[in-house]
Parts: sequence; structure tokens; C-alpha cells
Amino acid sequence: MLRSHHCGALNENHSDEEVTLAGWVQKVRNKGFIVWVDIRDRYGITQLVFDQERTPEMVYKKSLVLGREDVIQIKGKVIERESKNPSMTTGGIEILVEELTVMNAAKTPPFTIENQTDGGDELRMQYRYLDLRRTPVRENLIFRHKVTMAVRNFLSQADFIDVETPYLIKSTPEGARDFVVPSRMNSGQFYALPQSPQTFKQLLMIAGFDKYFQIVKCFRDEDLRADRQPEFTQIDCEMTFIEQEDVLLQFEAMIQHLIKEIKGVTLEDFPRMTFTEAIEKYGNDKPDIRFGMTFGELNALAQNKGFNVFDSQELVVGIAVPGGANMTRKEIDAWIEWVKRPQMGAKGLVWVKCNEDGSYKSTVDKFFSEDDLSQWADATGAKAGDLIFVMAGAAQATRTQLSALRMEIAEQLGLRKSDRFAPLWVTDFPLLKWDDETQRHHAMHHPFTSPKKEDLELLDTDPGKVMANAYDLVLNGNEIGGGSIRIHDTALQEKIFRLLGFTEKEAQEQFGFLMDAFQYGAPPHGGIALGLDRLVAILSGSETIRDFIAFPKNNNGRDVMIDAPAMLEDAQLEELCLKSLPKDPL
Amino acid sequence: MLRSHHCGALNENHSDEEVTLAGWVQKVRNKGFIVWVDIRDRYGITQLVFDQERTPEMVYKKSLVLGREDVIQIKGKVIERESKNPSMTTGGIEILVEELTVMNAAKTPPFTIENQTDGGDELRMQYRYLDLRRTPVRENLIFRHKVTMAVRNFLSQADFIDVETPYLIKSTPEGARDFVVPSRMNSGQFYALPQSPQTFKQLLMIAGFDKYFQIVKCFRDEDLRADRQPEFTQIDCEMTFIEQEDVLLQFEAMIQHLIKEIKGVTLEDFPRMTFTEAIEKYGNDKPDIRFGMTFGELNALAQNKGFNVFDSQELVVGIAVPGGANMTRKEIDAWIEWVKRPQMGAKGLVWVKCNEDGSYKSTVDKFFSEDDLSQWADATGAKAGDLIFVMAGAAQATRTQLSALRMEIAEQLGLRKSDRFAPLWVTDFPLLKWDDETQRHHAMHHPFTSPKKEDLELLDTDPGKVMANAYDLVLNGNEIGGGSIRIHDTALQEKIFRLLGFTEKEAQEQFGFLMDAFQYGAPPHGGIALGLDRLVAILSGSETIRDFIAFPKNNNGRDVMIDAPAMLEDAQLEELCLKSLPKDPL
Repeated sequence: MLRSHHCGALNENHSDEEVTLAGWVQKVRNKGFIVWVDIRDRYGITQLVFDQERTPEMVYKKSLVLGREDVIQIKGKVIERESKNPSMTTGGIEILVEELTVMNAAKTPPFTIENQTDGGDELRMQYRYLDLRRTPVRENLIFRHKVTMAVRNFLSQADFIDVETPYLIKSTPEGARDFVVPSRMNSGQFYALPQSPQTFKQLLMIAGFDKYFQIVKCFRDEDLRADRQPEFTQIDCEMTFIEQEDVLLQFEAMIQHLIKEIKGVTLEDFPRMTFTEAIEKYGNDKPDIRFGMTFGELNALAQNKGFNVFDSQELVVGIAVPGGANMTRKEIDAWIEWVKRPQMGAKGLVWVKCNEDGSYKSTVDKFFSEDDLSQWADATGAKAGDLIFVMAGAAQATRTQLSALRMEIAEQLGLRKSDRFAPLWVTDFPLLKWDDETQRHHAMHHPFTSPKKEDLELLDTDPGKVMANAYDLVLNGNEIGGGSIRIHDTALQEKIFRLLGFTEKEAQEQFGFLMDAFQYGAPPHGGIALGLDRLVAILSGSETIRDFIAFPKNNNGRDVMIDAPAMLEDAQLEELCLKSLPKDPL
Repeated sequence: MLRSHHCGALNENHSDEEVTLAGWVQKVRNKGFIVWVDIRDRYGITQLVFDQERTPEMVYKKSLVLGREDVIQIKGKVIERESKNPSMTTGGIEILVEELTVMNAAKTPPFTIENQTDGGDELRMQYRYLDLRRTPVRENLIFRHKVTMAVRNFLSQADFIDVETPYLIKSTPEGARDFVVPSRMNSGQFYALPQSPQTFKQLLMIAGFDKYFQIVKCFRDEDLRADRQPEFTQIDCEMTFIEQEDVLLQFEAMIQHLIKEIKGVTLEDFPRMTFTEAIEKYGNDKPDIRFGMTFGELNALAQNKGFNVFDSQELVVGIAVPGGANMTRKEIDAWIEWVKRPQMGAKGLVWVKCNEDGSYKSTVDKFFSEDDLSQWADATGAKAGDLIFVMAGAAQATRTQLSALRMEIAEQLGLRKSDRFAPLWVTDFPLLKWDDETQRHHAMHHPFTSPKKEDLELLDTDPGKVMANAYDLVLNGNEIGGGSIRIHDTALQEKIFRLLGFTEKEAQEQFGFLMDAFQYGAPPHGGIALGLDRLVAILSGSETIRDFIAFPKNNNGRDVMIDAPAMLEDAQLEELCLKSLPKDPL
């Protein structure tokens, strides 16, 4: 052992003890005749004192050249401080140093290693190992560790078995793009990295494992949006002989347990909402219900009153901004500009001020009476002192735009409180969604999701209307998990593959093993997968998943620290019987 | 819930209760007027009874067509059995069935789903989900789950933090061959899958994480030997401000805890042995010390006595076979043939019987006196009634051969008891090994292993003599883990890379980030990685790791169930800017 205690361990109870500490130099204060050095490790900071009178001369001299981030080992005696710092666990003592060893001197780091750093994003990514030294970053990962341990122990105690599924599997073109791995032993052939262990967990249910979980890396080769990672971590779970209700209750209990254990907060039963209701009330299938501002549909109230902008549109819909009647014209105009930005694409906003005196003031006073506007207020839940924003247009696009506006206003009004947890189950998703580009149905969740029994006949007549036994878990406006009851019957699975445009041959080649397995006694089963990166971020009051990943990649999928991906040696490609082509071959 | 209880839950205390069970049909016994059906799930088996008198007729009729592995749900009443089976937890009761639903009928499985099956290896791999239904296979994976949970909780309680390291990293040609992953976004460039998180865990130590662990998949594209897998799982650990002794004690404690918790066995302090001693006494750096049969070197006793076969050889070495004096000539000849097989390549065996009456009988009586042979017996530890086998030849090859003979004899004599646990630390490995083919040194462990301080000067003068701060954990003759104290100093790391034949440019390109990191305050650190697959197998009394992996690959690296790897669609290759070449281009 190169230390007798860590740097967060000592207090007045250790007075006069001889101790050995090791750690990093956090700070040096040289008063001319006395040098104080803060020594840091994962557990805390301890103050060292080097003193012209009491410290051996050679040691004192060595202390004068210590710099930030040097790794040192010291021996010395614990003494009580003259002026104590009660905000630190070690604040009552300091170490009078007798021996000092510089284990490894440090160059000056490229940014300060403090809670607030001066380093930019790229620089901190390049020196990620230094960024990880900062307390908030390290604490994020320790928090993640605690969450994963709590999840594992909860599920294990609930009889779920942790089973590792393979990483080298087969590419299936349905869904997102796979990362692939050339096989040297089977030249010309490739493995794929799993986008999720979906089919394997289903096979485990067919194998009788009853309850399965795994905290597992998954891979998707997608064009990265901000805060998406090519590799991400899932809490993957599956259960047998259950119905949707059982899955919801089981994982509601897990999240309640987690939030109780990690945050000390007790959550009530989770509210539930159908997909349709979520879209109508929030314009969004992952609504943040920490605050109101639900949508009020105004078609019946606002159309056919002579205001052309509304009359010609599919949907007129508004929200109430709490206290918004106080907004200046300039503030309102800024919101109008905000929705008109190209990435939003709205045409504009109609607004109505609900004055404290009960009167209304709007941009459309010419077309609507006070009585009309009062009905709008009822429909949007606006009270005296609020402002109503109204949008009109094609239903889907308008809801999406109004949802974005709702979230942004709430953000600015401080309504999205990071210490409040508002979980929500969203249920009754459509099984399929129509894709204009490919002119066929795509699976809303994935091809293994079971239709609702009562909709089975619609599969032949009007497949777009079929509802799925699928559910999403939403937390604070983020989808943190999704799942479904699965198909466990060959004929139904074949029918779904056909609807999704698979030929019989394609279905057989890609998923023949699963459809075979269904024929040897497949039980009803279903499950859920939760995004660990996001769950941890939200539990921690953040929404930036990158802050909760030890070595994240940037938006180009690069690890700028190790500089990956990189060129291979020619011999490696030759062994794989592969040739790289120029990006745009003629 | 599709069941009120699982199939291992019910006993006499539930008499007269109405219950719902769901599971697989294990067995049907039709006595003409009464049908007994065993229903199975992960938790147990419950006996159902369908009775011409007491069961509704329609239900009784349905029971007549039930077949093995059908998935059924039943409702019925718990009744006490007339003849109880005390060896089953549910053996006191049966269920008088009132309702029967066939949830999914099963085709006849391709092999019997019993503890002893009639299915061959290939067939069971193809229908792995059916093989997993067999109790011993399922129990193996549940055992694995328990081991991993115990490991995680032990390490977490010892302040180790579980940190996920990336799977998409950079290829480094040193060591085994990497699996690579083409990058679509950075065309012509590749990620590699990690052979281990070695450099990342070192960076975590430099980042101040102090203690790290991860149960993590690792990948090696090697030509597969029997019982090697291209993807395998490691318990990966690293610690800061420690010396070798600290690592040994920490992981000794972990294994002791595991074996106590999982097997109920208390282990003493682990014995330790240097690499040199292991080679000399067992011909092997992972000796099985559950039994004796240690090597006796006979050069001084057996050379220069006129027996040419010995005189010309580098090493003459023997082992005592307990009770072997009873072997027939035919049995001894079989052993001689065994060592002469091409894969062993020995020239033969000299044998000496130590008769119960104190006399000796050997193949070399002409050259050696009774007194000579008595000295051989002393050197090999042979007692009256034992047999001595002696081999001679080049030292390294002869030790390897004699080691294989020792293990095979012990296996046949039943000395390798699977319920005994004999751990051993092997220490003091050489840092480097010379490779004749490439005419350079290779790292015995890996390039990050630190040389022993006292040998640092030898690096310049006689690098082959340098000892490493490296250690292996051996259990029952299997290496289950290995680790080292790492280099944490740029200059020394550069020197080692040079010794291993890296140019400065290569070292910089591949490991520049690590050598950079060493300059910003790298603490002394070290760790260990344990092979989880093998550890679990050995704890379970087996040595076949494939039995402890849910979905293993065969010896050609194929998953025969899902048929991976497989050809990609042309469009996928095009997107990756890759072209497959024929295996042997002209």
C-alpha cells in the first residue's frame, strides 16, 4: 500500500497519528515561510502543511516546486488546524509533512481541473482523462455506477437472470443501419453488432428463462444528431407468461425503487396516457407533464369566423402561457420569430392576452369577439394574466411545432424543474406507420411487436388502424424506455413480415431461426428496454447523455482522444479479403 | 398475469386453492381413464391430473392430445397426492385440472429435453433455445448470473466503480488480431473491437477513479482452438496507489468470498509460486496443485552412467505415479504410446516400478543399480507401490510433455477432483520472451507491464533477464486471471515499445494518447483481468466454457443457430466504400 488513508478519511479523531497519503496536488499556497498544499484523490482533499520551522529543510525545499496535478506521496503527522473549515470532512485537520516523494511530476494541464473549467468542449474531449478528474464529471460516473448496481440488484431480487447475449450477430436491414464486422475465417461474410438483443431475449423466453435482464451495449450506425452516440447502453428486460399490465407494474416498481434509493423521493403510481391523447394534448408522444400548458383545439371555436388564416387549415390549436399577459410586444415578437426559424417552419403565431381585468387583447380582435376569445381561454385553460399562443396548419406539423414552443417556453419559465420526476406510461401505439418515400408500412416499434387481439382482423383490411401492445416509459419529457408484448406465433409473425414488405425468402433468411423457434413451444412474452445513458442523465437532473459516458464519441462518431476510427494496415485488409474504395467512385 | 403461481411453488399448504399455472408439457402418462401431465417452467415441475370422472369432459379430451413441449395454461384445484414424491418440492400435491388452454402447440423437438439428451453437439447448437431448456444447461447460466452478481456486489462494496469503456476503439497490431468495424461516416477508416479495455482502465486511473471494475466483453480474431470463443467476458479491474501485494490480497479476498458465498467452501490463504518454480516443478505456468506428482530432476543422478539416451539430453526428469507399481505391462505401453503420439512428440518413457518389498524393477536395470533407482525415487517422491516415469530431451519441450502426461494420468486416476478448489498465485514472470520467427522480443503479458525496479538496468544490457511485476491467478490447473503493475512513466514506456520493435512513429500513432496522459500526473497503478467464462466453469466443476455461454459460437466462429456471419447486401458494402475480394486473388 502506498498510502495509509485516502484523502477524504482524516479528521480530528486521527490527531497525532502518523499517516501516509498519496494523490494529486490540487492547489499550492506559498506564504513565504509556510506552504499549504491541497492533496486530492477520488475521496476528498486533505490540507498539507510545510513549515520552515517544523518541516525538515530538504522536504520544505521540495514543496516549493510542487505544481498543479503533480502526483505526490507524503508521510506526516495529523494535527488540528488553527482555523477549521467546517464545510470539509477533513476541514478540522492538516498534515504536518515529514517526507515528500514526487511520484510523477505533471506538465501544466491544458485547462483548469476545477468544478468550473476554462476548457472548451473539443479540448476536454481530447484530454478526457483530465476532464474526468473534475469532481462533477467524476461524480456523474459514480452516480451511473450506483444506478446500475441498484438496477441489477432490484432485478436480480425480482428473479430476473442476467444473461449475456452475443455481440457478433447477423445483419438485418430492417430498422436502423448496422455496424458490421468482416469475418476473416469466413471471407466475404460479415457479423453485425447488435442494435439490441431483441431476438436473443425472445429466444431466452422460448428457452424457458422466464425473466431476463442485461445491461448491454447496443450499436447503431446512424448519422449522429447532437447527443446521440453510435454505441449506447440499454437495460434490456423480458418476461414470460405476462400481459402488458404486468410489465408496466414491474418496471414502474423498478423506477420507483431507483428514485427512492438514489434520490430519496417517493413516487406515486405512474399516470398513463394513450398515444392519441398524448399527441392531442401535448403534440408529442413523450410529453413532459411536470407542467400544464396542454393543447386546446380551437377548430370549432375559431374557424368560419371570417379569419382566412384559420379557416383553410386542418388544425387550429393553442396553449396558455402562465403569466404571459405581462409579455412586452418585443418579447412576443421574439417568440413569433422563434417559431418562424427554418428548423421550426411555422408561419407565425396568433396571440391573445387574458388581462387581469377579464378583458382580452389579441392580434385578431377584428375577427373574434371577447366572447369568442373567452371560449379560447376555456379551451386552453388560460386564466386571467395568461397569454394564449395559437397556431394553425396541417395537424401533424402544427402539433410538432406547438409542442416545441411549449417546451421552450417552459424551459425559459423554469417549469422544467430538474429535481421533480414526472414519469408517464404512453400506451396504445399504432402497430405500423406509413412511409411515403418507400410506399410501405414500417413498424412503429419493431417487427416483433404484437397487434392488439381485437385488431387482428384489421391487419387484412386496414393495417394502418391496427393498435399494438406497445408502451413507452416517459420521464420528464424524455422517452427513457419502450417495449411491447411480442408475437409468439409463426403465422402472425409471417403476416407482419409480409406487411412490412419482406419477401418470404428475406423473412426466412433473416429471422428463420426465430420463426422456427416459435414452433417448438413459444410462450407469451414481452418486455422493455430502457436507455441507461438517458435514464442516468435525467435522474441526475441533466439531459446531456454525453456527460454520463466515460469516453464518449463526438458528433462525427470519432473518439478524438485515441483518434479512432483510423486507417488499417494494408496487411489487415488483405487478411480480410477487403479493399477500400474511394468515397465517390466514378 | 397468465399464472397465479409458478411450477415450483405449490405444496400441501396450498391444498384446495384454485390456481392458474402456465408452462411446458414435460411428460404425459395416460392410464386409460386418468391422464397425468407434468408441467414445467424454470422454477420446477408440477403434476396435473385429468380424470374421466372429475374433469369436465371437454377438458379431459383435450388432455389426450397434449404432446411434449406444448405450452399450456391450466386452472384447477390443488389436491394432495395419494402417493407423494418427497424428492420434489411439489411432490406432495397435484392439480385437478378444470380448464386447459393450449397457448402454443409444439412440433416434436429434434432431441429430448431431459437432463441426459440424445441430441448431438451440432444439432443442439442449431436449436440452442431448446438445449437451453434442459435443466443442467439452464442451471449453468443461472449459476453464472449468481457469480456475476456476487462479483459485482463484492467489488462495489470494496469501493470499485463499474465504468463502461467503449467498444468502438482503435486497432493496435501488437498482440492478437483485432476484429475491425468499417466506419461509414469516415470512409476508409475502421474501428476495432477491444481485446481488453487495458488502455482505458489505465486512463481511468490517471483520471483519479482509484478503483475500477467492469464485467466486459472482449474480442480476439484468433484461429479458434477447441473451447476458445471469438468473444469472451472479462472481470476487468484496476487500482491506484497500490503495489503487487495489494492486488494479490484484494483479489484473493474476492475469490475467497465467491467460493464461500457460492459453494460454501472456506479457502485458506492462497499459496504462491514463482514462474521458474512452477516450470521446474510442474513443467507448466498454471500448475494443478490439487495433487502431487511434482517433477524430480534427475540429471545429476541419471547422467553419465552409460545410458546414452539420457547422457546426450539437456534434461532428465521424472514423476511418481501413485500406486502405479500395479500397472500391467500393457497399461504402461499404452502410456508410452500416448506420449509418442504426434501431438505430444516425445521419444518414449523410461519407467521404474517401486515394488512394495522395496526392490525396483525398470527398463534400464542394465545401466542403473537399485541404489541409483532408490535415489530417483527420493528425487521424484515415489514411495513403495508407485511407478516412476522418466523423460529426457530438450528442457522446455520435455517439461511440456511431462506436464501433459502428469495431467492425463491425474485425470485418469481421479486426482483432479472438481469439488476441490486449489488456487495459486504464480509470480515473477519474465517481462519479455524472445521470438525466433520475428527475431525480436515479445511482451510476455502486454507492453504496459512494468519491469521490476531492481531489473531496470538489465533492460539495456540483457532484456531477456528482466523480471516483471506480473502475476497470474491459477485455479485447478487453469489460468483464470492475470495482471500486473503497469508502467506509469513516459520514458520507460517508450523504452519498452522500442524493445518490442515499435518505431517511434508507430508507438506515437497507436499509444500516443497514453504516453501523453502519463505526463499529466499519472499515479502508480496496476490490476488484473479474470476470465469470467472459465472462472464460472471451474467453480461449477467443469472446464468446458461453452456450456456456460448462452449462445456460443462453434470452432469456426459461426453461430449456427442464426447462421452468422453472413453475406451483406451490396448496398451495405457500397455505403461502407468496401469491396470483397476473392479469397485467393491471382
